[in-house]
Amino acid sequence: MSEHMNAQVTVTLPDGESRSFPAGVTGYDIAQSIGKKLAKDALAVTVNGTATDLNLPITEDARIEIVTFDHPLGKEIFWHSASHILAQAVEELFPGSRFGAGPAIEQGFYYDIASPHRFTETDLELIEQKMLEIGRRAITVRREEMPREQAIEFFSTKREDPYKVEILQDTLKDTPRVSIYHQGDFADLCSGPHLPDTSKLRAVKLTNISASFWRGDPSRETMQRIYGIAFPSEKLLKKHLAALEEAKKRDHRKLGAELGLFMLSQDVGSGLPIWLPKGAIVRSELETFLKEEQKKRGYVPVYTPHIGNIELYKRSGHYPYYSDSQFPPLTYTDDLGREEQYLLKPMNCPHHHLIYSSELRSYRDLPLRLTEFGTVYRHEQSGELNGLVRARGFTQDDSHIYCRPDQLVDEICNAIDLTRFVFATLGFDDIQVRLSLHDPDNPGKYGGTGDVWEQAEKDVREAAERMNIEYVVGIGEASFYGPKIDFIVRDALGRKWQLGTVQVDYVMPERFDLSYIGPDGQPHRPIIIHRAPFGSMERFIGVLIEHTAGNFPLWLAPVQVAVLPITEDAHEYAASVRDLLHREGIRVKLDTRSEKIGKKIREAEVSKVPYMVIIGQKEREDGTVSLRRHRQGDVGTMTLDQLKEKLFTEITEKS
Amino acid sequence: MSEHMNAQVTVTLPDGESRSFPAGVTGYDIAQSIGKKLAKDALAVTVNGTATDLNLPITEDARIEIVTFDHPLGKEIFWHSASHILAQAVEELFPGSRFGAGPAIEQGFYYDIASPHRFTETDLELIEQKMLEIGRRAITVRREEMPREQAIEFFSTKREDPYKVEILQDTLKDTPRVSIYHQGDFADLCSGPHLPDTSKLRAVKLTNISASFWRGDPSRETMQRIYGIAFPSEKLLKKHLAALEEAKKRDHRKLGAELGLFMLSQDVGSGLPIWLPKGAIVRSELETFLKEEQKKRGYVPVYTPHIGNIELYKRSGHYPYYSDSQFPPLTYTDDLGREEQYLLKPMNCPHHHLIYSSELRSYRDLPLRLTEFGTVYRHEQSGELNGLVRARGFTQDDSHIYCRPDQLVDEICNAIDLTRFVFATLGFDDIQVRLSLHDPDNPGKYGGTGDVWEQAEKDVREAAERMNIEYVVGIGEASFYGPKIDFIVRDALGRKWQLGTVQVDYVMPERFDLSYIGPDGQPHRPIIIHRAPFGSMERFIGVLIEHTAGNFPLWLAPVQVAVLPITEDAHEYAASVRDLLHREGIRVKLDTRSEKIGKKIREAEVSKVPYMVIIGQKEREDGTVSLRRHRQGDVGTMTLDQLKEKLFTEITEKS
Repeated sequence: MSEHMNAQVTVTLPDGESRSFPAGVTGYDIAQSIGKKLAKDALAVTVNGTATDLNLPITEDARIEIVTFDHPLGKEIFWHSASHILAQAVEELFPGSRFGAGPAIEQGFYYDIASPHRFTETDLELIEQKMLEIGRRAITVRREEMPREQAIEFFSTKREDPYKVEILQDTLKDTPRVSIYHQGDFADLCSGPHLPDTSKLRAVKLTNISASFWRGDPSRETMQRIYGIAFPSEKLLKKHLAALEEAKKRDHRKLGAELGLFMLSQDVGSGLPIWLPKGAIVRSELETFLKEEQKKRGYVPVYTPHIGNIELYKRSGHYPYYSDSQFPPLTYTDDLGREEQYLLKPMNCPHHHLIYSSELRSYRDLPLRLTEFGTVYRHEQSGELNGLVRARGFTQDDSHIYCRPDQLVDEICNAIDLTRFVFATLGFDDIQVRLSLHDPDNPGKYGGTGDVWEQAEKDVREAAERMNIEYVVGIGEASFYGPKIDFIVRDALGRKWQLGTVQVDYVMPERFDLSYIGPDGQPHRPIIIHRAPFGSMERFIGVLIEHTAGNFPLWLAPVQVAVLPITEDAHEYAASVRDLLHREGIRVKLDTRSEKIGKKIREAEVSKVPYMVIIGQKEREDGTVSLRRHRQGDVGTMTLDQLKEKLFTEITEKS
Repeated sequence: MSEHMNAQVTVTLPDGESRSFPAGVTGYDIAQSIGKKLAKDALAVTVNGTATDLNLPITEDARIEIVTFDHPLGKEIFWHSASHILAQAVEELFPGSRFGAGPAIEQGFYYDIASPHRFTETDLELIEQKMLEIGRRAITVRREEMPREQAIEFFSTKREDPYKVEILQDTLKDTPRVSIYHQGDFADLCSGPHLPDTSKLRAVKLTNISASFWRGDPSRETMQRIYGIAFPSEKLLKKHLAALEEAKKRDHRKLGAELGLFMLSQDVGSGLPIWLPKGAIVRSELETFLKEEQKKRGYVPVYTPHIGNIELYKRSGHYPYYSDSQFPPLTYTDDLGREEQYLLKPMNCPHHHLIYSSELRSYRDLPLRLTEFGTVYRHEQSGELNGLVRARGFTQDDSHIYCRPDQLVDEICNAIDLTRFVFATLGFDDIQVRLSLHDPDNPGKYGGTGDVWEQAEKDVREAAERMNIEYVVGIGEASFYGPKIDFIVRDALGRKWQLGTVQVDYVMPERFDLSYIGPDGQPHRPIIIHRAPFGSMERFIGVLIEHTAGNFPLWLAPVQVAVLPITEDAHEYAASVRDLLHREGIRVKLDTRSEKIGKKIREAEVSKVPYMVIIGQKEREDGTVSLRRHRQGDVGTMTLDQLKEKLFTEITEKS
């Protein structure tokens, strides 16, 4: 005991600095020693990487990090505590309520509640007020550990909460000691960690009530699930609500319909987008852009069918192992009575491998870079379907590069370079890269031997380093045939989307027995790189719509120029301007309705047409136009040659 | 009788001239009266459109035509007689042979023979010789009509031919009088007509022996089928054999493999072509060409999925009525337990109709010209599959034009104009047009009322006439939804292929309840034009390969220029020429192997590369190239600018 009193612990802070404290120091004490502001913002502390309560004593040397709301773990802890505060508020307002599960989720939290009271929208406001009041009461949150039996006793008698008892008797039956978090009169079975007290909660929005089943089991009792989100300040809540509002405005499904880009129809089937004329222009321009770029970089296009004999996918190993994510096979009996099964192709790879092996390849023929905009079909859960972003039919900008081992790193670098070029051109500046590697503890998940994986991952790292890429590593996130480099872009609203990918594959060359004749006259195995900068045209354009809020750059805009005559006597000249631009390949629309110019401009703005060419009497007489930029206003008066030049420059530069 | 002796008949010749002859005059007499050559070439005569023997008396006024080998009916009659001569030859050489059926076919004839002798290849030559001998014997062919009973007696006792007896007792049991054709000791049950004597047969080639069943019934006796073809001159046979040889050389499946254009693989499935890099260039260039042309003409591209809910095809009427020609439906049960059936789309139309009806259309929005290179999948019989020309998966250059009645004829004309432009560009100069109309006697085959069909066919004829098209009419060849204008091209070997099509459709607008708001504020039905100038990319390119023998015009050639340095010290300059052309977007290949220039040229010729750039010391020093055209030889020496200019001109002009 005396030793403990005198003992010191050394804590190492994230910046590498070490400090000495008496043993038993808490995260809060350490935060305070660093600064008042930090202590005020501190929610929890990580000790050697594990998050714990801010007020637990630290008794050994450790690496520590103070967790604030902005820390990667901050929101989850905050929202988890908010769900306890929600429960306490409900208990105070609606006695007799009992509590199921109340986790943090990606955006906020919920609690499943069994209550004799039927919650309404009005109740939500009442509960919000009560939660804020509990916040103002600054109730200390206290962790108590005890044997499981004692906890069962506690929830059976003190709290009369059958759900917690059930979890203790069932899910936790092999756990000898459990923890309970007390918060005033409220207590919950919980492993934590939690906020030190309720005062951190300063802003809350309860968003929704829905029905759920206890333990997700439809044969058990129905519960009422209340969703919400909470913040340490009113300002953060406002920011969040504004971002939600903006995201709703930019929702690509909403904009897709408003701008006539694509449609979904039950008559065709769920998750099967149909590209309307305006959306088809965007897609086609993107495809042409990539095709041209790939042509320069030595890719050769191919076309392959959208179905394939199921044996092909058995050979690749995609069937039956991935049959969950595929449409079921179609059984075909031909006129000779031969029965065959075909799959809607879930990927293009096996078709390309057949092309590779259709002729004898020499080491001089490599790398062979086959490329195809190949439409594939996959079974996505109905609940996961989301417009273009998650569909059942989508078109990959899919290439397979067959190369020699000595070409592999160069080819990975080239693929990375192309992917970065594509993202930069489309205005995605904030890109994260994840090296998705295999999990050595789970070798059954992967094809190929350990040696092969070691080599492949070494090659991928070497390429990433040569290309000066900062990356994070995702262990266990490789595909079954090899490691991947995944590109995650952050859109204008700060949301992350996985788009492009570059994957190394040593496994399929074996399964498809691919070979090339080396300089030694002997057959060798090529290596395959799978890569897709866009990933899926549908998903990419869905994200692009949200990123740009439908304000496409000029080269992609479905209608690039609206020609708007002010009066009828300018119609003829306006038509000649329209014809001139059309002949030059510019997508132009002439509005000769007898509407006021203000209305014509407003409608062009709403349609997000990048340029408006306004033509009145003066322009007609001078042979000029008055140019207006969407969302920016007047650009000035210019000659037709100047107009053409300006448009061409912007289109060519894809700016 | 006396009246008959004195009676005259008036015959009207094809040129409209009428001549008078004594009643009982024969076709041969009439031919003789016109000219010796015609009498010599005459094979038969048509009397009021019906073909009959040349030596039958004509007893009433009639329109007549002398049938020679070149007449539309000539070959069939000639080859039918040749099958009798084959039978007579076999009977003389192999007594005891008995004869089943012996018709003319599209190219020649066959006879099914039951014989104790097993025919070999060597026998075929023997039989050919005997047939020519029978020809030299100039045996008169004589028609005899008699009651069916008498014919049974004849074939039972005189000819001991059980097969003819069976036909008389079975197929012909309700025919009171039948005809027998005598030819020396040989006689056959036959309705004719036939050649007047065997001397017309001057050249014959027996091509094949195969097995067949009597009456095509596998439970009946096996027969030996001998195939052959015959001509009135040795010269015509030689021409035929040379054409066959040429067709074999040009077979697109053979050239497709040799030139690396496409492949077929059982691993993917029968009838599902895969476009290899070189073929993909041809297809992509053709698609780009049509896309650009369509853009100028106001078409708007769309993309639609390759599957559709089966309800969509029930609505269009394509299912179950055309289910024979479709892949079977795929039954899909989603995670919510909803079972749906999807069809691989057999056509793009219903998807496009959904796009039309996705928004309210005004009369001002029409015509709406939706276009898509849409890949469709159809069940073709295994025996009918033929490389690219008949496949189970193919890509239509499919457009649907939705227009008002007052726009219809203009739009049909535009579609005809585009189709002719496409064919002319691709070097198909010999085009036939067929108006495929409905059969008024078979109204059950068609959708829509008689009035609608009358109007549609009137519109189609009006357009054809306005476009100055010569056409033939095919009654009963319309599609179920409307009349068609089918374009049949004749290739370099004189073979006919149906490629493009323009179809008018008043039926689908009803079934899909399509409408537009007219100037009167009321909804009206649009009319649809279905059109596809290429028809199917696969079929068109298959035909183009055979038409050009793989010698594509420069703009389509997969490799446009081969750069062939003569010696190694020219390699660097040759590489700079290659780079220059590549930068200009020309598809160029550099051959730096240490092979003799003669071999390099030969291989480039075999690969059908349009231009060879030969570079020796002189060219290197002068900064010039020596140009060679495939199949033509030396073009001359020129500067690099001249080379570029020449290539660009030829590519741009698509010549």
